[in-house]
Amino acid sequence: MKKKVISALSGLAVGVLASTVFFGNFSTPDTVSTASAKTDAEKVYVPFGEKDEYYLFASGGHSGQMFIYGVPSMRRIRTVPVFSPDPATGYGWDTHSKKMLGGYTWGDLHHPAFSETNGEYDGKYMFATDVANSRAAVMDLKTFTVKDIIEVPNTSGPHCAAFVTENTEYLFLPTRFSVPIGHQYASLDEYSTKYRGVMSAVTFDEKAQKLNIAYQVALPPWSYDLSDAGKKVSKDWAVLTTYNTEEATTNLEINASQEDRDFIVLFNWKELDKMVKEGKYDNVGGQKMIFPEKHQGGIYLVPVAKSPHGVDVTPDGKYFIASGKLAPLLTVFSFEKAFQAIEKKEFAGERNGIPILKYESVMEREVNPENALGPLHTQFDDKGMAYTTMFISSEIVKWNPETGEVLDRVPVQYSPGHAVSAEGDTVSPDGKYLVSLNKLAKDSYLSVGPSHPESMQLIDISGEKMKVIQSSPVDPEPHYGQMIKADKIKTIEVYPKEENNPNAVYSQQDARIVRKGNEVHVYGIAMRSKFIFDAKAKRPDVIEVNEGDKVIVHITNLDFDEDITHGFAINQYDLNMEIQPGQTNTIEFTAGKPGTYPLYCTNFCSALHQEMTGYLLVKPKQ
Amino acid sequence: MKKKVISALSGLAVGVLASTVFFGNFSTPDTVSTASAKTDAEKVYVPFGEKDEYYLFASGGHSGQMFIYGVPSMRRIRTVPVFSPDPATGYGWDTHSKKMLGGYTWGDLHHPAFSETNGEYDGKYMFATDVANSRAAVMDLKTFTVKDIIEVPNTSGPHCAAFVTENTEYLFLPTRFSVPIGHQYASLDEYSTKYRGVMSAVTFDEKAQKLNIAYQVALPPWSYDLSDAGKKVSKDWAVLTTYNTEEATTNLEINASQEDRDFIVLFNWKELDKMVKEGKYDNVGGQKMIFPEKHQGGIYLVPVAKSPHGVDVTPDGKYFIASGKLAPLLTVFSFEKAFQAIEKKEFAGERNGIPILKYESVMEREVNPENALGPLHTQFDDKGMAYTTMFISSEIVKWNPETGEVLDRVPVQYSPGHAVSAEGDTVSPDGKYLVSLNKLAKDSYLSVGPSHPESMQLIDISGEKMKVIQSSPVDPEPHYGQMIKADKIKTIEVYPKEENNPNAVYSQQDARIVRKGNEVHVYGIAMRSKFIFDAKAKRPDVIEVNEGDKVIVHITNLDFDEDITHGFAINQYDLNMEIQPGQTNTIEFTAGKPGTYPLYCTNFCSALHQEMTGYLLVKPKQ
Repeated sequence: MKKKVISALSGLAVGVLASTVFFGNFSTPDTVSTASAKTDAEKVYVPFGEKDEYYLFASGGHSGQMFIYGVPSMRRIRTVPVFSPDPATGYGWDTHSKKMLGGYTWGDLHHPAFSETNGEYDGKYMFATDVANSRAAVMDLKTFTVKDIIEVPNTSGPHCAAFVTENTEYLFLPTRFSVPIGHQYASLDEYSTKYRGVMSAVTFDEKAQKLNIAYQVALPPWSYDLSDAGKKVSKDWAVLTTYNTEEATTNLEINASQEDRDFIVLFNWKELDKMVKEGKYDNVGGQKMIFPEKHQGGIYLVPVAKSPHGVDVTPDGKYFIASGKLAPLLTVFSFEKAFQAIEKKEFAGERNGIPILKYESVMEREVNPENALGPLHTQFDDKGMAYTTMFISSEIVKWNPETGEVLDRVPVQYSPGHAVSAEGDTVSPDGKYLVSLNKLAKDSYLSVGPSHPESMQLIDISGEKMKVIQSSPVDPEPHYGQMIKADKIKTIEVYPKEENNPNAVYSQQDARIVRKGNEVHVYGIAMRSKFIFDAKAKRPDVIEVNEGDKVIVHITNLDFDEDITHGFAINQYDLNMEIQPGQTNTIEFTAGKPGTYPLYCTNFCSALHQEMTGYLLVKPKQ
Repeated sequence: MKKKVISALSGLAVGVLASTVFFGNFSTPDTVSTASAKTDAEKVYVPFGEKDEYYLFASGGHSGQMFIYGVPSMRRIRTVPVFSPDPATGYGWDTHSKKMLGGYTWGDLHHPAFSETNGEYDGKYMFATDVANSRAAVMDLKTFTVKDIIEVPNTSGPHCAAFVTENTEYLFLPTRFSVPIGHQYASLDEYSTKYRGVMSAVTFDEKAQKLNIAYQVALPPWSYDLSDAGKKVSKDWAVLTTYNTEEATTNLEINASQEDRDFIVLFNWKELDKMVKEGKYDNVGGQKMIFPEKHQGGIYLVPVAKSPHGVDVTPDGKYFIASGKLAPLLTVFSFEKAFQAIEKKEFAGERNGIPILKYESVMEREVNPENALGPLHTQFDDKGMAYTTMFISSEIVKWNPETGEVLDRVPVQYSPGHAVSAEGDTVSPDGKYLVSLNKLAKDSYLSVGPSHPESMQLIDISGEKMKVIQSSPVDPEPHYGQMIKADKIKTIEVYPKEENNPNAVYSQQDARIVRKGNEVHVYGIAMRSKFIFDAKAKRPDVIEVNEGDKVIVHITNLDFDEDITHGFAINQYDLNMEIQPGQTNTIEFTAGKPGTYPLYCTNFCSALHQEMTGYLLVKPKQ
């Protein structure tokens, strides 16, 4: 029976099968009963005056942004722009964020990861990667703003990041796509020899607030999907999944599913560090790149059922769990067994200089929930129990990694990718809540046309049995999230004064406009409810320049008052920036169009916000 | 007492006062009591399998987009891009939407308005205007996608639109800012003579799916804030608020609040139609523009307490309600009285050729809720009762327009701008729900840094007393919304086949790549789980071009299955488009960078979505 289903899993058949399963689930009495609705309503309702228990940071996928939710209310509190411009906050228009975006107009944010201390989320930073334009970013959780973005060279789509090591020593960024190193043109006939899947080891310099690439590893020309860092006993190690180890170059739907097994890459990053220190690398376009076929050690391959998505390390660091995404079964692998096999050099061949361990040597147990199909990702609770998403059979399976016993199953609507549990990637998950990030909503919500929202479902996992207690539509497209206890994040209320910032103006009478040749430097202030650009002018809220001038506008928000944000927009000049309480921000533009252009505050700030306006006057060239 | 408070209402004082009021409200036992929480939780909870009763279309402010919520759950179902690019849907990258956006990278969407038939929302279209870059847009509610955007010339920030007439004959777009007509450069010393506030009468051609400007009116050089169309007895009329009738050119916070009264502009659009037909207009930059000082009739001024925000016509069309936004009192004006005064020519002077009616002749009654401050906008229920937002005292006041009796008051958190009731702008509002769109959240939700979300609060208005039953954080920045009964909107499930569309490909074997000189035309398909660009090629999912080629990619989504949307992105080429079920979409680019670039589906579409990839190979110039 199971085999028959699996053999149908190619091409359109998957969709058809999935559709059948969807609507099968729809009428499950469990989730729709009115009796249980009352209790569920109370569980997710956070009355005014109280706050949510957890922050959920969910990737915004090809929006390029991060969505911040409160749990259990599942209310979306904020969209924090990361890889795409965001006019609502002026991100991508002000000088700092425009430079950070590097000219790119969008990103594809897949997997967010909190900074960690001793394997616990420390609430200080959030990291993320961009599959579309190969970047990595760090967000400061004091302000919920992005501090740095780097482009990752020699690579194409660091999909399977970011996951951090126990003390945020590294983010490892393996790549989804293999390309000729440096993106040169090379025929796909030369795929196996000229293409590579490069993994980057990225560090974060907290003092300088900068991301850096420490080194790279030229892995084989495969696709890499997800990774996880080891914990406790496995803390010096990391694991990542591969697919298309067939090295197919077209129609991957079929050609990348030919072999029965792909691999988990298992590597010891302390050994890689050592290799770099010992000069065991090549210099490739300015990067230190380890080629495993030249410098062996520290990297191993573990066979796994074909085309796995996730690989997840248990909170105790003893096991890693992975599954073929079209398979009915989950595999628990043992780090200890892997270490022993490596010690004994029990290898079964190699690929591109990387030794292959035997599946049987590393496998701890196989788990086979009846008729469950499409295991993708696993999260954990406070009792060590595992929760695995089943994409095809649209459900969450709860099971015990120590025994393989299946404890509970609950349908979700529909097609879950990742799930995220409270503090689920730490050494001590909280239990309590699990959110299923579903790829399809179908008819779950009011229709918004042929394309529907995605869906997140909140599951109460505090008892022995799981219970879906809330369903929330989501903008495209949640890939992964992390959920952190609310009290771990300590935001600031206003930006502190920066007395040494030459662009800042802290008293109204210091507001001034300085011309240097054809550059006009404005040192202005915003306060409820006016702009002052030039305190001494007849009209202090007017900026007058000549056509073609370069205009640099610095504005300090003098309202040192929580939540009193001002905006600065110029009509028909296609510009907007945000200035948060106490902040000094800068926007630059060339006054290319002569004429009269109203400027205004875009953030409603007081009863006289509507009056917080002025003009940009651009005198035409004679 | 009241006077003392009002006299403090300038500059920072407003903020300080507001802050005091905020925290005064915070501990109101009513809203925080646990006893009532249970009932409220049930009222807003929509269990899986059931759907929300209403769609709420809320303006996304300076995000430029429209947010679609379900009521009563207050879940955000969708973000529909309107005036800003949206990478999540490829809006602004595909050829059609890129052209519609006209090169602008953001917009400031203020007031959404449904199309109407006989004064009822008909569920067919949604209109909106852009304050930032002076545009108007129409969204088709069969697909929730924008069909047309026009730039509105001679004007700067059509803030006080869109509000439609009873049968969608017109959208009137008065402008927030006065500028020299055509945006020429002119000194602000010449403000009263050279600047104008132009109103545009826009029509929608449903067959061609195009917006057009029928004519414009050169109103005086003031600011215009909000407008509303008449109903029933007043259906040929419209009203709009003005401020800065002082014609101040700097520090409007103080200078635009000098006079005790500004005006409501009251006009008869059938008379304006007639004037246009009779040639009573000037041709200004291709537009038919009526100058009231040259061609009088049809337009009148009604004095109102200074600096009003909203003006709202009652469902029966008998009255319009407006208030000075810093005032403690609301004024009900009578259309009938206005018509009589006009008939009798009871004028008290004129401004720019427009006759001024007497306040006393048009005023029906003044309403003075004790200690209520900052009345902005009014909505209505099914019993004819009015609900007015009080920005400064942070509350909603329920009152009877026929008697002036104040019936109830409820605090909201904090600083409400607009409110929106179910079907509230129609001739027959539904009652039941009112949403308060609050400008500040302060500490209502988990903190996300110095800048907080805005907030919407759902109020149960089904009984005699109002009750806040849900508080929802909102991305910046909700200005206004309209709420429509869910069954009025009829979406399509998939795009119909367009057999005559030369870019569409409906069978796999017709996928082809055609070169014309240095143009490469791709006629491809997307289906679970592959791209086919050239059915006959060795690698059908590869596009190979020469450096510098212009590449035009058409893709048809062959999955005629609700919710199965595909994306098409090219790594490091900064491109993404969406192809909804059955749709054919096009993206164009120049292959400026030689090299090897993976391409992939951005919308998770099946278990083998990850395999839905290919390559763009760009052969370098020799």
